[in-house]
Amino acid sequence: MRHIVLTGLSGTGKTTVGRLLAEKLRRAFVDTDEHIERREGCTIATLFEARGERHFRHVEEDAVREALAGPPAVISLGGGAILSPRTRVRIAAEHTIWLQCSIPVLVARTLEEGGGTRRPLLRGATLEERCEQLLREREPLYAQCQFHVCADGAPEAVVDQIVGLLAAASTARAEFTITARAHPQHPEYRVIVGRGILGELPGLVEGYHPTSRAFLIADQEVWQLLEAIVVDVWATSPATLHATAFPAGEASKTIETASGLWTWLAEQRAERHEPVVALGGGVVGDTAGFVAATYMRGVPLLQIPTTLLAQVDSSIGGKVAIDHPLAKNLIGSFKAPDTVLVDTALLASLPARQISNGWAEVLKHGVVFDEELFSAMERDALALRRLRSDLTFATVYRSLQIKAAVIQEDEFEQGVRMLLNLGHTLGHAIEAAAGYGNLLHGEAISLGMVGEGWMAVRLGMFRERDLQRLEQALERLGLPIRLERVDHEHVRQAVLSDKKVRQGRATWILPVRIGEAKIVHDVDFGLVNGAIHYLEHGEA
Amino acid sequence: MRHIVLTGLSGTGKTTVGRLLAEKLRRAFVDTDEHIERREGCTIATLFEARGERHFRHVEEDAVREALAGPPAVISLGGGAILSPRTRVRIAAEHTIWLQCSIPVLVARTLEEGGGTRRPLLRGATLEERCEQLLREREPLYAQCQFHVCADGAPEAVVDQIVGLLAAASTARAEFTITARAHPQHPEYRVIVGRGILGELPGLVEGYHPTSRAFLIADQEVWQLLEAIVVDVWATSPATLHATAFPAGEASKTIETASGLWTWLAEQRAERHEPVVALGGGVVGDTAGFVAATYMRGVPLLQIPTTLLAQVDSSIGGKVAIDHPLAKNLIGSFKAPDTVLVDTALLASLPARQISNGWAEVLKHGVVFDEELFSAMERDALALRRLRSDLTFATVYRSLQIKAAVIQEDEFEQGVRMLLNLGHTLGHAIEAAAGYGNLLHGEAISLGMVGEGWMAVRLGMFRERDLQRLEQALERLGLPIRLERVDHEHVRQAVLSDKKVRQGRATWILPVRIGEAKIVHDVDFGLVNGAIHYLEHGEA
Repeated sequence: MRHIVLTGLSGTGKTTVGRLLAEKLRRAFVDTDEHIERREGCTIATLFEARGERHFRHVEEDAVREALAGPPAVISLGGGAILSPRTRVRIAAEHTIWLQCSIPVLVARTLEEGGGTRRPLLRGATLEERCEQLLREREPLYAQCQFHVCADGAPEAVVDQIVGLLAAASTARAEFTITARAHPQHPEYRVIVGRGILGELPGLVEGYHPTSRAFLIADQEVWQLLEAIVVDVWATSPATLHATAFPAGEASKTIETASGLWTWLAEQRAERHEPVVALGGGVVGDTAGFVAATYMRGVPLLQIPTTLLAQVDSSIGGKVAIDHPLAKNLIGSFKAPDTVLVDTALLASLPARQISNGWAEVLKHGVVFDEELFSAMERDALALRRLRSDLTFATVYRSLQIKAAVIQEDEFEQGVRMLLNLGHTLGHAIEAAAGYGNLLHGEAISLGMVGEGWMAVRLGMFRERDLQRLEQALERLGLPIRLERVDHEHVRQAVLSDKKVRQGRATWILPVRIGEAKIVHDVDFGLVNGAIHYLEHGEA
Repeated sequence: MRHIVLTGLSGTGKTTVGRLLAEKLRRAFVDTDEHIERREGCTIATLFEARGERHFRHVEEDAVREALAGPPAVISLGGGAILSPRTRVRIAAEHTIWLQCSIPVLVARTLEEGGGTRRPLLRGATLEERCEQLLREREPLYAQCQFHVCADGAPEAVVDQIVGLLAAASTARAEFTITARAHPQHPEYRVIVGRGILGELPGLVEGYHPTSRAFLIADQEVWQLLEAIVVDVWATSPATLHATAFPAGEASKTIETASGLWTWLAEQRAERHEPVVALGGGVVGDTAGFVAATYMRGVPLLQIPTTLLAQVDSSIGGKVAIDHPLAKNLIGSFKAPDTVLVDTALLASLPARQISNGWAEVLKHGVVFDEELFSAMERDALALRRLRSDLTFATVYRSLQIKAAVIQEDEFEQGVRMLLNLGHTLGHAIEAAAGYGNLLHGEAISLGMVGEGWMAVRLGMFRERDLQRLEQALERLGLPIRLERVDHEHVRQAVLSDKKVRQGRATWILPVRIGEAKIVHDVDFGLVNGAIHYLEHGEA
């Protein structure tokens, strides 16, 4: 059973509502601010002044952690608690409620309670201005919450509304299996998608052997954020966890990193039945996956993707690889993981650009296979950018199901799976020309989809109206649809100097309508040139 | 149609018999000595004196090559032509006949023809002594020939005998397929076993695409020997051959070598459909195989094993790997080749120790699965050590069939395939303790089989008599059955310090009788100690 976590600005009535809600549901009530004041023996305001915000946030993070470690309760958080990425990830596993108030109500309630003396961040400027500013700053983070509830009315009415929402709440957990013909000894692998399912990891490891060791590989940024959380979920497991982390970023996806990881496994005498756990984004999944595919000719692999792009795309399908100085993903293999644990709560720490980056691939699934998914994303674009909890779970799940169906039909990318490369022929060239890191993969694919969509319009395959719809959806998701902040001439040269493109031998995936695409060969060189021009100027 | 190549000491009547045979079969006759004399404008003896043996052998090698390049003929070789390993490999692809004479006949014929003035190597000492010495030196090489014919009698009778032998000659080519479930996109791969089938390589490459490129990887020793032969068979192919070679030996089986090969492929922009050809022994097959398994997540692989051990063992089964400083074969994968081309003619250059090394694994197949194979090897041990042509082909083929059946039943080494590890638990430890290179793999496995056979006798599973039979067969094949030239104490320490062995958790494959073995766990530590003692002293 999940905790019920109340968030929102100071003055929205979290304590009052929380206490009533706890009573009604016969649960304990924890107010983390009260907890901190009791433990530290002073008011929050004093603590804030004496030790600074940074220290306070640290104390607050601990208080949230302790509250979550107890039996399922109603927990009211301080208004700024969600500023901690670690806290966001932790509470994203629970039921989260954002109590919203209109500014006048907020101001009135704050004045009623004593003018905000207990609430350090509300001092200075006018109260109204400060409230507005805080809301602007924190709205993107509060918006991740599962339920957004207006708390202007009477507390009893707010409580009733919350009880109703909770009763109808989705379980936010689902699983399905993928048949990986490449590995007859593991004919199927599980994909578990859920919100707050990281706690299932120790059980998966114990499944190999009650006292198995797991060899967790992460990047240093992910591990800095998630180590404490992993240690918490591991606390009671009889299995042993060994962990290592390499520097974050594509630059780590090298033979040298793989080599270091092989040595790490060898030094610990990791055995053939002991799983590697890949915890991170695409770079970690690809690198750790390649190491797991090749150490002792293959050890079990558990994938725990932590970025949206990895969750919806790279963590399933079995493609693993490292880069070579001469080409990306040049050294690799097909390696089916034993289990993919897609925990959407882990996304709660991602910066906005990374989120848009992931939705680009999901929208692509909509364009190629599923108009319904596309329409839903078009409608909910803003909420998706904010990672609104249940919506994110449902959209990630739908996207994974599409990808799973495609790769099961075509494991080795010889037919329908090629359609997943919509936007990629142009997108890869743009990504490379822009310099890796300047454009994120999803951003490049967004541009690629627009350029290829334009080509499809010119070929009379795709309606102008659908191209506009595609561009609008991408823009709403926070993705680029024109070449900006990129050296246009360099991109043009890069794309056009590709021998296959020049000779018309490149394979293009072009949209036919929203929800359908097809493979096209023999595309004229001039048309590609036109697409670049369109991406530069919005016209051919 | 193959050439008919006559070899033997000077004076055995190669020219006379050859001319008659050619007439009878309506073929051209080529005498390479005559050819050389005509071309160089002087006698062999003069050439030999003026330019030395080394130059002469070089000229002779060319003459043989030219003769073989023409239409199927009867070719008579100079007595020492088989001293060239490259010539041996070339003629091993043809019908080869060793004309043998008793020494008195040889002496008489040589005197008749003018006292050996034309035959430089017969001068000095007494003629009889020189003949005996030459025969001793060259017998191991002549003995590779397909047919051994006594030429003491009348040339017409010898010719009749040869015609009869040729009429009944085996085609010495067979093929079968192995189903590799690991690669559903290539559900079956071909194993072609034959004598002189290297010429099929260009056709295999053209099979991917008429103008494919093939990327051949060899070690420098193999390539030094075989480059000229590969170039000859490639002469008329429209496919392009790129080749590279790394230093020979286990020390090359590293991440660095693999890395260099990845770069080589990347620099030449090798594409996904272009095959890698692994030409060499186990080190080349494993390393090039691993590179082919991982470059672009896998490109087609053609295995051309050139050592006996690789032909009968490592080239099929799909296990590829490189070494890690901490353990052999630690980094690898399962990679089914598209085709394995097992050309037993390529063995003709191997030194004696390498040949025995290979037969160790074949005899093991007999011990574990096939008493008939064991008995045949016991009987023909000397001829096998000499690589007698048809016998070698038949034995390699039988051994491959056994291994193919086993790996098809158990591709991932979870059941019956483990039985192939007879001799390996002890053998690996002995090999490592002796220092790689001091004992060859097959030699270590020979010792391992003896030690494990002794353990099986002690456990009452295996008869003492069968152990003796096993030891005799190994000895006849030129393999060690006692620890000699090895630091005994070091071996003892290495074996006994293995944690699994100490704790009785190692997996042992022990023989039950000749032709059957089984898996045994829980072997007492003292028994292993006894086995080492037995290998040292021949008694426990």
